Amino acid sequence: MKKTGLADIYRDYIRCLNSRDWPLLVRFVDHKVRHNGRRLGLTGYREMLEQDCEDIPDLEFRIDLLVSEPPMIASRLRFDVTPKAGFLGLAVNGRRISFAENVFYRFHEDKIIDVWSVIDKSAIERQL
Amino acid sequence: MKKTGLADIYRDYIRCLNSRDWPLLVRFVDHKVRHNGRRLGLTGYREMLEQDCEDIPDLEFRIDLLVSEPPMIASRLRFDVTPKAGFLGLAVNGRRISFAENVFYRFHEDKIIDVWSVIDKSAIERQL
Repeated sequence: MKKTGLADIYRDYIRCLNSRDWPLLVRFVDHKVRHNGRRLGLTGYREMLEQDCEDIPDLEFRIDLLVSEPPMIASRLRFDVTPKAGFLGLAVNGRRISFAENVFYRFHEDKIIDVWSVIDKSAIERQL
Repeated sequence: MKKTGLADIYRDYIRCLNSRDWPLLVRFVDHKVRHNGRRLGLTGYREMLEQDCEDIPDLEFRIDLLVSEPPMIASRLRFDVTPKAGFLGLAVNGRRISFAENVFYRFHEDKIIDVWSVIDKSAIERQL
């Protein structure tokens, strides 16, 4: 896998999330995917994403930084969103918040098999 | 800058931090360095690190994941440490905690000029 290739696949994955095209997820996510060390599998991963979109109706993933070294991708995602109720244990309750997620992905045969994500909770707390 | 070269420079930077060799920092950090968008400069950056080591005497940086695409480096750092008092607004007070930091660096002429860091505060909260 060439470097540009993997970055392009990742950008397509982000487009898939932003269009809520869940049936397409199988093209980007391995059936054995783990998230922060927890084996979710494709079904659990899709459920997590669908729940996120339910909790945050205006959820949109925007790539701020992208570092590609196959089979790894690191991405800094930027969110400007309005969670309906709580988020990460914080009472956001319909307020608009802005925060980053720094996240690493390991790909296996062009599909995401491991995700290590950290969300900037301190930044959200400063806005509440 | 070749990919291996930048990753090697980064590993030397981490060794510099772990050995508290502050005079050597100038070899790795640009005089105009910014941290999460805030212009610290080399002096402010060194002061931040020295303060971290004062607050967390057993602070050691360990690289879990390293993604290199010059001029960018993304690194997942792992910490098993014992902050003396508060940390990120949490009353840690001498308890041992384990957490990750997902961090991006932009290099300029082989020196760090931009840092975008997110610490896994939720993971720490779960341990308290």
